[in-house]
Amino acid sequence: MNSPHKPYVHGRSDREAERLNYQASKLADLLHHDTCYPPGSRVLEAACGVGAQTIILTRNSPGAEFVSVDISRESLLKAKLRVSHDGITNVTFRQADVYHLPFGPETFDHIFVCFLLEHLPDPLLTLKKMKEILRPGGTITVIEGDHGSALFYPDSMDAHKVIDCLVHLQRAMGGNALIGRELWHLMIDAGFMKVAVSPRIVYADESRPEFVEGVKNIFIAMVEDVREQAIAQDLVDNVTWEKGIRDLYRTTEQDGTFCYTFFKAVGNKKS
Amino acid sequence: MNSPHKPYVHGRSDREAERLNYQASKLADLLHHDTCYPPGSRVLEAACGVGAQTIILTRNSPGAEFVSVDISRESLLKAKLRVSHDGITNVTFRQADVYHLPFGPETFDHIFVCFLLEHLPDPLLTLKKMKEILRPGGTITVIEGDHGSALFYPDSMDAHKVIDCLVHLQRAMGGNALIGRELWHLMIDAGFMKVAVSPRIVYADESRPEFVEGVKNIFIAMVEDVREQAIAQDLVDNVTWEKGIRDLYRTTEQDGTFCYTFFKAVGNKKS
Repeated sequence: MNSPHKPYVHGRSDREAERLNYQASKLADLLHHDTCYPPGSRVLEAACGVGAQTIILTRNSPGAEFVSVDISRESLLKAKLRVSHDGITNVTFRQADVYHLPFGPETFDHIFVCFLLEHLPDPLLTLKKMKEILRPGGTITVIEGDHGSALFYPDSMDAHKVIDCLVHLQRAMGGNALIGRELWHLMIDAGFMKVAVSPRIVYADESRPEFVEGVKNIFIAMVEDVREQAIAQDLVDNVTWEKGIRDLYRTTEQDGTFCYTFFKAVGNKKS
Repeated sequence: MNSPHKPYVHGRSDREAERLNYQASKLADLLHHDTCYPPGSRVLEAACGVGAQTIILTRNSPGAEFVSVDISRESLLKAKLRVSHDGITNVTFRQADVYHLPFGPETFDHIFVCFLLEHLPDPLLTLKKMKEILRPGGTITVIEGDHGSALFYPDSMDAHKVIDCLVHLQRAMGGNALIGRELWHLMIDAGFMKVAVSPRIVYADESRPEFVEGVKNIFIAMVEDVREQAIAQDLVDNVTWEKGIRDLYRTTEQDGTFCYTFFKAVGNKKS
């Protein structure tokens, strides 16, 4: 989910849906293995998109009741289909804007937010509003990436340039692709207690083919998706773009390596 | 230990010795918890320096027999004093150059190398030579940092510039401060089998004071140590330097965050 006034930097194409599904399956263990909610608890998943994380969340906590919201009717339809296909019954979907969540104060025991804040012009306000609908003592879990963490071999200036195009475009749309490193202060500033941030590093080399595929199909595909915008806005020339993308793919071949760090933050509302 | 023909970029001052001791105590668990050698095995620690890692290695594997070498007689003296002070008896020290290790073929069951390759003009050659003195089926463990992994909030161009000074100076001395990401290909190119590389990320925010101290006393102190050289070689002006260092310290205060990634590689010699 993103701000209703801004387009979504990654687009909502079928390829994008595939990317997000892929993302969920390959990164699931790394990001979500330690997210479990007790039976009977009411959990809000804010910005469920096409349901990539919903599948994992609901399976990890079969006794919890989930409400998953997104602003995009199209994404919600895909999410519903997917969940229904998998026979999952402990989730209801609802169309809603994260800035105007249609829930009363202290409605939820827990809130889960993944890959949302990076797209919002005011992530702090969003966290504060979420705190209102969380019961005292309840938890919020926030997961975000940070494109500044991309580290690879062979290193390449042009590869960094094409990544910077995505960072720039996301910023121009009011987002922040470097938000992972900021989760600590955002959670503290929003007034959450007992905040704990843990980085989750994805590392890919030839001995980890599933992560190499992830780098190609998730990260590089996401960068490639902004090609037209980047060229149209003169952020980079054609030759540099092609070279940068080629250099990124090179890190997934032969003796290459690629690292990326996600940040997971958990905090409590004062009880 | 470094090449005998080049000075050591970090110097060998008392502050440096303190930094390395500190490093060992604070990063010990993160980097070394999974390094244990069976009783009776002969282990070479190549480039033990002032014994920072020696203490941890020997305690983790009390039944193994260690030989710890370094090129610096002064560092070895400090290492011996420290080990003796701690009552450790399963290690002998020997002055030696990693390019001309005074051991016959297949002398050791295991080899351990930490923060060495980053200082060497030919890390691949070093690994190949180490393979010769390793018995078939024996393991080599290599740990290195990568200054390109430094990620922090608030972000700062000047902070990156002062880090780049260290990277530049280390390269000018024949080393490579960005070597962590290269461990995979170096180990493969040296002919080791079953190579597994795992990144180890240090993350510091206010809730982790021990790591915040580590960032200041290890990482920032190491950058500060090259100030004179950086200014003398016109890599940076005085004002930018001061601002960059201030900005680095700022990441350890209030709502700041700091991340750094080490890489640990383990491989086997073909049996």
